[in-house]
Order: sequence, then C-alpha cells, then structure tokens
Amino acid sequence: MTSETAPAAPAALIARKVGIDTYRENVVYLRRDCPVYRAEGFQALSKVEVRADGNAILAVLNVVDDDRLIGECELGLSEEAFAQLAIAEGQPVHIAHAEPPPSISALKRKIGGERLTRDELHAVVRDIAAHRYSKIELAAFVVATNQFELDRDEVLFLTEAMVAVGRKLDWKERPVVDKHCIGGIPGNRTSMLVVPIVAAHGMLMPKTSSRAITSPAGTADTMECLAQVELPFERLGEIVRKVRGCLAWGGRAQLSPADDVLISVSRPLTIDSPGQMVSSILSKKIAAGSTHLVLDIPLGPTAKVRHMDDAQRLKKLFEYVAHRMGMTLDAVISDGRQPVGRGIGPVLEARDVMQVLNNDPGAPSDLRVKALRLAGRVLEFDPDLRGGDGFAVARDILDSGRALAKMNEILDAQGRRAETPPLARLAHDVLAPDDGVVTGIDNERLARIARLAGAPKIKGAGVDLFRKLGEKVARGEPLYRVYADSASELEFARQVAARATGYAIGTADEVPRVFVEF
Amino acid sequence: MTSETAPAAPAALIARKVGIDTYRENVVYLRRDCPVYRAEGFQALSKVEVRADGNAILAVLNVVDDDRLIGECELGLSEEAFAQLAIAEGQPVHIAHAEPPPSISALKRKIGGERLTRDELHAVVRDIAAHRYSKIELAAFVVATNQFELDRDEVLFLTEAMVAVGRKLDWKERPVVDKHCIGGIPGNRTSMLVVPIVAAHGMLMPKTSSRAITSPAGTADTMECLAQVELPFERLGEIVRKVRGCLAWGGRAQLSPADDVLISVSRPLTIDSPGQMVSSILSKKIAAGSTHLVLDIPLGPTAKVRHMDDAQRLKKLFEYVAHRMGMTLDAVISDGRQPVGRGIGPVLEARDVMQVLNNDPGAPSDLRVKALRLAGRVLEFDPDLRGGDGFAVARDILDSGRALAKMNEILDAQGRRAETPPLARLAHDVLAPDDGVVTGIDNERLARIARLAGAPKIKGAGVDLFRKLGEKVARGEPLYRVYADSASELEFARQVAARATGYAIGTADEVPRVFVEF
Repeated sequence: MTSETAPAAPAALIARKVGIDTYRENVVYLRRDCPVYRAEGFQALSKVEVRADGNAILAVLNVVDDDRLIGECELGLSEEAFAQLAIAEGQPVHIAHAEPPPSISALKRKIGGERLTRDELHAVVRDIAAHRYSKIELAAFVVATNQFELDRDEVLFLTEAMVAVGRKLDWKERPVVDKHCIGGIPGNRTSMLVVPIVAAHGMLMPKTSSRAITSPAGTADTMECLAQVELPFERLGEIVRKVRGCLAWGGRAQLSPADDVLISVSRPLTIDSPGQMVSSILSKKIAAGSTHLVLDIPLGPTAKVRHMDDAQRLKKLFEYVAHRMGMTLDAVISDGRQPVGRGIGPVLEARDVMQVLNNDPGAPSDLRVKALRLAGRVLEFDPDLRGGDGFAVARDILDSGRALAKMNEILDAQGRRAETPPLARLAHDVLAPDDGVVTGIDNERLARIARLAGAPKIKGAGVDLFRKLGEKVARGEPLYRVYADSASELEFARQVAARATGYAIGTADEVPRVFVEF
Repeated sequence: MTSETAPAAPAALIARKVGIDTYRENVVYLRRDCPVYRAEGFQALSKVEVRADGNAILAVLNVVDDDRLIGECELGLSEEAFAQLAIAEGQPVHIAHAEPPPSISALKRKIGGERLTRDELHAVVRDIAAHRYSKIELAAFVVATNQFELDRDEVLFLTEAMVAVGRKLDWKERPVVDKHCIGGIPGNRTSMLVVPIVAAHGMLMPKTSSRAITSPAGTADTMECLAQVELPFERLGEIVRKVRGCLAWGGRAQLSPADDVLISVSRPLTIDSPGQMVSSILSKKIAAGSTHLVLDIPLGPTAKVRHMDDAQRLKKLFEYVAHRMGMTLDAVISDGRQPVGRGIGPVLEARDVMQVLNNDPGAPSDLRVKALRLAGRVLEFDPDLRGGDGFAVARDILDSGRALAKMNEILDAQGRRAETPPLARLAHDVLAPDDGVVTGIDNERLARIARLAGAPKIKGAGVDLFRKLGEKVARGEPLYRVYADSASELEFARQVAARATGYAIGTADEVPRVFVEF
C-alpha cells in the first residue's frame, strides 16, 4: 500500500437554528447518525470550530439522538451562534476539531504558579475576548490568577490588555468623572444621586453601568424603572453633551469584552480577587473614557472586603494600576456592614433614590449621606473647588432641588418611562423571632432572598427592609417584606428566609462599630 | 398589608426524555413560556435541583424557545438524568434553585491557598462524587490543588476520601498484585503482557483498566479487540479465581467515582499534578483490592514527567501515600522518550502485543523488554522469589509459550471475540522530509494524530510507526502510516501531520540519551 492522495474535504452541513438558550456558551447540535461527520469523533472534551463563509466560532458539541430537532445533514446552532457567525439559516457550514487557543501555554504557566509577561497576558485576553477559552479554561485562569497569584505589574498588564481588546470612548474633554463601587452591598444605588448632583455642578459624568449578574439589582436595572437605558452610542453622546451626564447601560458599548466573559465564570465561583477586581473595574472605566474616578470599597463582615488590611491592600493596588494607566483615582473605604437604604430590587431601590432626590423627610438617611459624601469627593476633582468643600456643595445642590431638576433632564433625555413598573403583587413578611436590637444584617443573605423572589428580572420583586442596624424590634414584628410576582418565586424566597432570616437580634452593645472614616 | 400565608408549592412538571447527549453533564430543558416556573428566574449561573419521588439530581438549565422539543408544562431531561433520577417518562418532577454544595466553603479556602483538613477533603470528595459540583467548580478545585498546592498529607486525605465514596473489592487473599503506568506514552500496552506472565506464575492479578479518555487507546480498548471486557463483577470474580488474572474494563465497578468526575475536567486542561495523579491512581488501585503495585513513571521530553527531579519527587509522594494506605509499592522510572512498540490505536496495539506473546521474530523488542522488566518487578513481590530473579523468570514464562497459553485462557474466560476488528480501510503515509536519523518522536503529537484518525472509538484507526529513535531514514520514505475509516477523519489527521509530523530528523549524536536505569 502506498500513500494515497489527500482525501477531499467533507461535504458541508446545513445550518439550522435551534431554539435553546445555552446562556453565554456556544453549543452546536449534531445528529449521531450524521452521514458526513462521525459525531462521536468530536465528542471528546474539547471544542469544535464551526466555519461558514470566512467566519469561524468555537462551540461545545452536543450529540443529538432525537430526529425532531435537526435533520441528519444539519448542524443546529443557537441564535447567538448564528449572530456570531453572521450567516442565515440554510447556509452551508463545516466543522473541525478546534485547535487549542494560542495562549494556552501561558495559561498553563500561570496554573503552574509562574509570572506572566505583558505579551502573554495580552495573548490570554485576546483569546478570552474571542471566546476561544472553554468554561473550564476560564475557571482555570480565574483560579490561577486569584488572591496573591498576580503581582501588581501583572494586574497592570491584564488591565491594559482588557482595554486593548475593546472599544474605547473619547469624550473630547477633561475631566470625565466617574464613581464606582466594587459591589456586594444591596440597595447601594448612590450613582443615581451622584450623577445628577455632579452634572448639575457642570462636570461631565457619562455613567455607564452594568445590569445585575448575581445581585438583585444593578444601576442599569434600577434606572430602567424610570427611563430608557439601552441607548445607541451616538444618542448617548448627544445626551451627555446636552445635560452633562447620563445613567445608561454599558453593555451595548463593548467596553472590555474580555471582562464580560471572565465575569461569567468568576461570579458563580464568587471569586473576587484583588487583581481581577482591579483589572475588571479599571478596564471598563478607562474604556468608557473616564479620567477621574471615585472608588467605593465597602468594608463589613458580609461585604466583599471583610478586613481593614485587605481593604487597604486593595486600595493601594487600585491606586498603582490607575496611576500607571494615567487615571486619577480617589478610593474610599466605606461602611459596608448592612444594605444601604431600605429597598432591595429595582422598583424598591428606585423609590429610595427618588425619595432622596425629592428631599422627602422619610427618605433613607444612610443612602442620602453616603451619596453626598461620594458626590463631594467627585466634585473635588474640580480644580476650582476648595479641598474639603465637596460635601457642602453636593448638599446644597441636593437640598435646593437642582439635583432633582437635573435628574428630570436626564430622564427626559434618555426617554422617560410613561409609568414606573408596579411593586410585585405577592408579599410575605419575615418576622422577628425575638425582642432586641438588630445587631447584624447579612448582605449576601438578603441579596439572595431578593433574587429568589425574582429581582432584577421582575422589576417590582425584592425585599423592603423595615429595620436597620441598631434599631429595636419586638418579637413578631416584621423585619422585612418580600415581594414576588409568582407563587413559585415567593415560595423559593420564603423557604430560604425561613432557614435563616439574615438578621441577627441581640443587645445594643453587640452592634458592630464602624471603623471607617467615610 | 400583612403577612400572607405561605403559598402552595408550585405544580409539578412532566418529565420528558430529550435525545441530546450532553457528555457527562446533566442538562435539563425548560420552556421559556412555562406557566409553572419562570424560566428566566433560574437562568442564573448556578444549577437547579430536580426532584422526583424522593430522588434529586443537580443539573444545568437550558431555556427552550422551540416548541418541537418539549411541551409548555414539561421538563426535558437527558437519558443519563433519567437514569440518575430513577424515574420513567411522564412522571411528575419539581425544580428548585440548587443550594451550593456543603463543601463549597472548603473549596473557597483551598482557592485561597489554605491547607484543608481530612474532614474538609472528605466533604469535597463526597460532593464531587454526588455530582454536586459544576464544571466551573470542578475546574477551580483541580487548579487550586495543582502543583505544590497540596501537601503530602492532603494527598493522603484526598486518596482516602476517594476510596471512601466508592465500592471496594475484596479478593480474600494476599498478595493481590497490580501494575500501572501514569500514562502519556502511546502504544505502552505492557499490561497485556505482564498479566499473563504473572498469572502464569500463579500470582493473583485481577487487572481492571480504563478506556482512553484523551489518549488514542487504553488497555480496555485494546483488549476489547480480542475479548469481552465489560463483565459483571460476579463473573469477573469467577474468572479471576479460575485463571488467576483478567484484563477487564474497570468502569462497571464504580471504583473511585469521584476520580471519574475529576478526570472529566483535569484531562481537557491537561493538568497532571502530582497530588491528583497519586490520589487518582492509588484510590482506584486500593478500591480494586490491590495490595502490591508496580508503578511505571515514564520520563522523557514529551512524556508527562519531563525532568528527573520531578520524577523522583512524584515517586516519593506515591511511596508515602501508598505506605500510609497500607499498600506495597514499587515505583520505577522508565524510558519515556518515544512511543512503545509500533502501533498506536487498539487494533495496532493488540497486534504488537500478540506478536510479543507469540515470540514472533518481528515483534517490537522495546515492548517485549519493558514488559519483561515490569513483570519481573511484579514477580518479585512473591516472597519465594529471590530478589533480582524476576526478569529471568518472566522471560522464561514468555519464551516457553506459557504466557501465550495463559493469555488464551484469559481470552476464553472473558469471552473471546470471533474475529479481531480489521484495520481501518483508508490510509495515508507521512513521509520523511529529509535524510537522517530519527532524533525525536513527540508522544503527544502522535497520540493526537491517532486520535483524530478515529482511535479509540474506531478500533482499526490509528498510527503505525515505521521508524523509531536512532533509526536511519531517507527523504521520501514513510515515517508512519495513518489509518482511518472515514474521509473526514483521515483528513483531520493528515492536516495535523502536515503541519508537524511529530518526528525530528537529525544526526546520530542528537538522539537524546536515556538517563533511567529501567
């Protein structure tokens, strides 16, 4: 037997849409009895490459034994896969074994505990942004770069690389100010107060926010109760030039796309390592064109950062990377012992924000004071403002109604909603098991309960807190009320609250002290 | 509004089989328009718990927009999910948000670089064996326990825990001998020679092997060309009592099930950390009832272990854990510079083995000698054998035809196949690009080419090597032949071989030396 000539490439499959939402993972479906490709040959643990008309995507292969879903010579793809391939149904596609991503040797070096170079980190981030990593590889990267596994220059390189693979906005003026919280505290909707205050002062504050991924509400989810947040980039530019600020969803802008991919793995692992937090936040802010940033690091027993040492170390890492990236950063360590305000969930949080803007006497004072402090720090980026005057200026803007007027301008510019969505129609009160003083409110537990109740997808779902730290409560009095729109969701939330309410009741001297200045 | 009474639990869904093979991950399918559960409420990044009739499984949820696959009030499950739940189609099922696995706090401690206790490692392994970890969590565990992240006692606890969650065989006599290779060398089918030699000597050697996961052939895949390997456990016991040995697939026995789950993640990452290798191998061997083990650690530039230091450290770790688990271990570091024998793929490897057993003058001598050395070490576990005599005794057994006779007994006992599967019908020769001497053969590359050609699923597919290290070759002469059964698979293999053959051609003095005694 001698060498045969190379066999012809196999015939194409026909692309077919399959209505299965695989949540951010490309999955393609191939019949086990496909006459073109032997499905089992692909069913190893690596990905397949799907090619059509010059484009290629990577996907996980599921083998189909069911003849209802796709035909023998078809390849089923989810809608997202179609969009990424930029083809229409019925077009020919080919599949092949995916080559390992080019940066996989760098990933393995990092798993082995070695330091990566700038070039290696850029290569890794390019592969991540291009969806060339499997979930397993992404998890490996997230764990291998966790904790103290990245030195500060690696964090810098990672941040640079994340900016480099995405779009970068240019507002054509300076300063472009921003405010960001590292997250983990429910109800912490200060941005919706800081933006109107700062914009009313005349500074440019084009705030783009994320939607909640694992929390019960993000700023974008909450703002959406009042106005449009999904705006084309050109429209956003016009709005910001006109009213000096916005509160929009950042997802459209493709800022730091690698970060979006990494988050899909780091969030379920609830890994928030310093390096990943810094690169994630700063890459998004720099890509959004911000030049000056006030960063909020809440500290508390159920916050993301639980010890002052860790908070200080994180602050220094943020400062180092921001400085090297040419951004002015003012990081503050704040009181993260409990949720901010009363509502948890988009409608409830929007209610709290509007009470503060309206100078309602019943407005949650912790939300008001925190927003004023943060706004004050942002205002002090104004070279014409005297150091230390920011808080008073912010308070004047809020108390005078100028912040509310600015918020109304922003809502009108973005497209005000005719009606605010209603509170969810079912409710369940969680009662105090004992007399005493509230000595602890578990941020994570309350967020989980609000989320099980349907927040943020159901805007009116969530939790409304009736008691905060240090307040007295009598046995049988409600601690908080859970709102949900469906019986199954109310029940999920109720069961979890029944196992542990998230509240600790004790004596006044057991209330943990605040050790933060801010 | 006052507290309402607890809502009733939601109505059940109807279980429906969905013919999609999701490869070792439970996936369930729920219609987006399901009137019972709001699908989006579940579509976070965590798992759902599916309950039916007292049983519960964890699964990933995919949301279905397609009305062909399942009905509005149905929950689609893969066949494996049905089997795990032990229900029939049409039965009622409930879904709920899955609680995080109990050991998740231990996982997080390990990710944070801390040392885990015996209890923590047992808890982690219980959750893994019960399929309570997502792929992302499994990857996190694999990376967090990689390299030097486990100390030797943690490896011991992990091994213990892996034995504890599975079945343990008891052969009711001692010694029960075994031989195992850490893997990575194609064609390394010494077990099929060692077992008949050792069993012919009268020692008990009930060898259970795995099928290939990411390699082109395992011992079970190769043995299956000649006889049944999937035997009920009771039958296996009868065979071993009668003929003193077997060569069966170990998958049926549920030995170390946690290891099977971990492998599904560590293999695609090609992570082979010392701790994971030791716990994986020793847990399987101890569960299989082995009391004495010869362990083969191949060393070479494209083997799993590439430096003598690493080989020695790995050897010591194996010795420590084996000793503490009450097992007698003899670990040998062997020449892993190139594939063993000539064939790569089940049929080709079975051919090599039978040539050696038949004392065929054309049999590959490296396979023969390596098998004799390993068999000799196993034989020396016999207290009646003088130290150093093992090799000669093994050679006598092989040369006299007693090993062949024993192999025939084993084949008959397990159920001899009427016909050996044929070689695959398509072939492609890969030619030497230059004159010279073979100075390197890349184990990984050749394994990948054989696998792309269809091995091990297609028994007759694979690679047949015509040249080994140190042999001369002229430009245009074939280095090896690729066998495949389908045009697409031959083409996949051909393309990869065209990019790099896996052979290095140079001068005689460039052939790497063997630094191993064995």
